[in-house]
Amino acid sequence: MANPNDPALRSWIDIAPTSDFPIQNLPFGVFETDERGPRVGVAIGEYVLDLYAVAQFGYFEDLELGPKMPKIFRRRSLNQFIALGRPAWRAVRQRISELLRHDNPTLARNEEAMHSCLLRQSDVRMLRPVRSHNYTDFYSSIEHATNVGIMFRDPANALLPNWRHIPIGYHGRASSIVVSGTDIRRPNGQRKAPDAAAPTFGPSQQLDFELEMAFIVGRGTELGDTVPIQNAEDYIFGMVLFNDWSARDIQSWEYVPLGPFLGKSFGSSVSPWVVTLDALEPFRVAGPVQEPEPLLYLRQLDEHNFDVNLEVGIQPEGGLETVVSHSNFGLMYWSMAQQLTHQASNGCNLEVGDLYASGTISGTTPDSLGSMLELAWRGTRPVPLADGSERKFLQDGDTVTMRGYCEKDGLRIGFGEVTGKILPANTL
Amino acid sequence: MANPNDPALRSWIDIAPTSDFPIQNLPFGVFETDERGPRVGVAIGEYVLDLYAVAQFGYFEDLELGPKMPKIFRRRSLNQFIALGRPAWRAVRQRISELLRHDNPTLARNEEAMHSCLLRQSDVRMLRPVRSHNYTDFYSSIEHATNVGIMFRDPANALLPNWRHIPIGYHGRASSIVVSGTDIRRPNGQRKAPDAAAPTFGPSQQLDFELEMAFIVGRGTELGDTVPIQNAEDYIFGMVLFNDWSARDIQSWEYVPLGPFLGKSFGSSVSPWVVTLDALEPFRVAGPVQEPEPLLYLRQLDEHNFDVNLEVGIQPEGGLETVVSHSNFGLMYWSMAQQLTHQASNGCNLEVGDLYASGTISGTTPDSLGSMLELAWRGTRPVPLADGSERKFLQDGDTVTMRGYCEKDGLRIGFGEVTGKILPANTL
Repeated sequence: MANPNDPALRSWIDIAPTSDFPIQNLPFGVFETDERGPRVGVAIGEYVLDLYAVAQFGYFEDLELGPKMPKIFRRRSLNQFIALGRPAWRAVRQRISELLRHDNPTLARNEEAMHSCLLRQSDVRMLRPVRSHNYTDFYSSIEHATNVGIMFRDPANALLPNWRHIPIGYHGRASSIVVSGTDIRRPNGQRKAPDAAAPTFGPSQQLDFELEMAFIVGRGTELGDTVPIQNAEDYIFGMVLFNDWSARDIQSWEYVPLGPFLGKSFGSSVSPWVVTLDALEPFRVAGPVQEPEPLLYLRQLDEHNFDVNLEVGIQPEGGLETVVSHSNFGLMYWSMAQQLTHQASNGCNLEVGDLYASGTISGTTPDSLGSMLELAWRGTRPVPLADGSERKFLQDGDTVTMRGYCEKDGLRIGFGEVTGKILPANTL
Repeated sequence: MANPNDPALRSWIDIAPTSDFPIQNLPFGVFETDERGPRVGVAIGEYVLDLYAVAQFGYFEDLELGPKMPKIFRRRSLNQFIALGRPAWRAVRQRISELLRHDNPTLARNEEAMHSCLLRQSDVRMLRPVRSHNYTDFYSSIEHATNVGIMFRDPANALLPNWRHIPIGYHGRASSIVVSGTDIRRPNGQRKAPDAAAPTFGPSQQLDFELEMAFIVGRGTELGDTVPIQNAEDYIFGMVLFNDWSARDIQSWEYVPLGPFLGKSFGSSVSPWVVTLDALEPFRVAGPVQEPEPLLYLRQLDEHNFDVNLEVGIQPEGGLETVVSHSNFGLMYWSMAQQLTHQASNGCNLEVGDLYASGTISGTTPDSLGSMLELAWRGTRPVPLADGSERKFLQDGDTVTMRGYCEKDGLRIGFGEVTGKILPANTL
């Protein structure tokens, strides 16, 4: 069998070289149309491959996917498919790769099947790909943590003492994770300016994005179990882009001592296509040197970061988009494997579909920062947009779009985008 | 129809006056036996009423509980039943009250039905009553927050500036909520003594309980919706006892700046019977005076606290239990209505089954504190046990049991208990 990551593979579907979804990617998502209920699909070029239809035509029959086939592909989330386990994910991806190869006539020459299985992405609605019952947001970019420390604490001691020892994280709100394209309503909340006598309640004046990536857990554990660092990636199904919308004024008033709460829980956006860790394999890179060396349970060999180019654009209502940041996921100080092993190190049970977000991914230059807070440096250097306006934080009507892709030796594996538009706050 | 809270009601089942489960209570839970899969039941005296059996005998037929009947009573959680809404909860509780009344022969004289519907509590295994996809832990006892502030921050400014303005809370880990009776394994984790040069990884040396109560959401909202304070209790199905196990050494090293994480997520225990807010109605009390007056969205009239007597016992392996604390839920500074309204105030969507815990419920006297941290005052005044030993924190083999009940005018409505035994940490 051909390696589905082989850069030489081609599909009988015409795919632009700049597409995020060549035959080497094959990310999983959930879509619906007016005629078809929620179904699992795979992105290929400008198309979606309907896996329920593929299964109905019998193309998965010899894969031994279990008694729930083909119903697992007619679900509102990927969870049941993911729960089948890595051998199943790999078998399905391998089969899809075969079916889409330029030299395989099985699907390409079966007009009825092709018509039934392939839909244009522009003709479907993408849904939230995974139902995550548990969502942790880490804080694993050393540049971001340092920037926040400089702004809000002590520039001379910007990183807190625990930061280089622990992949710091907190539990986020799972219910308000929404798929790309969902509008985000500006939250009302309590905030208090440092010089104000008392707090007030009203629309956040410091609405922000956070450029993040997140991984989806593909294998659960029992309470009391742990995950050795060398096995941690076996528990990861794939990755998405993640916008951890943040209301800085609400957050700064509420977060001491128990952490972020309503400053975050009004919404978090995910991209609709989950790129498998298998597809990302060619893009492994070493992370930053960790100093001091982590404790034994977090110590890893080899390369556990992934080289994903990221960008953030802001488009004002009716205007053109300005790309305000370029960053890279490969910069992360703590790897996904370390995050996952740490999460489970106290015996906390993992569940299939758990979402673990990276924390804001900031680079080392002023144009590579992952939030408005940092880009405009707490409002002191407003960010210019193409329409001549500028931003300290987000305005109503702004659409924020994040994109990500890997590129190496002529092969491009992309994540598509996660986008959301700010609606005005509810009137009080 | 008789008011199911009427203190004069009696059942044809013999119920001890000290029972937590008289005919005026009728809490809901989920049980199983070797013969019967998971089913919804109601506690009555020393018995469980099997609602699936009751439904099969046709006793709910005229209640119009919808097309999912009677399957909703053959489920591993109460969620589907709760999702039917308050009119359904009330209709079912009313009907059960009627069936169990001393003067109603319908069930009492139908030997076949009675045999099928009533099981001894000692013959069933109780399961986690609700599947909570979202769990928030509040911090709403002013005595607890003050004690923690005195111990870890500034005795002169023990309460943080936001505390009297916001029902402070944080998202907890939903996956590790377990039912009473589940053993709790001592977690391993990173901790660093203040005078140590570097952290180490190993078993927590400061394992603690937190005496809490929690409420279960019975009605969801859409993202962007809010819950006016005057309607907040309409969204609450009922309450349980809650032990928020805490590893203080892990917590104190990890929690700045993003809050508690692995110091809590290794397990949280709930009592198996959910006492409805309807059953608690006779036990309303006013809460403490709130000063300053909360902002308008949190301002409430009437009485929104509930007078629940609470106690905590510690039983060493093979020894007798010592009750180490007596507290009361009526002391809480922030009410459940205020917590829920605050949670939803930024548009965060609620889901049926959400669990909102109160935070540690401490009283004003040294014997009414809700955690070992406070009872032993950070290890400075060890707590004596009946077997002659003493505790600064919990030891392996200790069983912690929390109990709660309301009592007024001869009527007692109880919660049963939430209990858990500490197992030794996994070897590294």
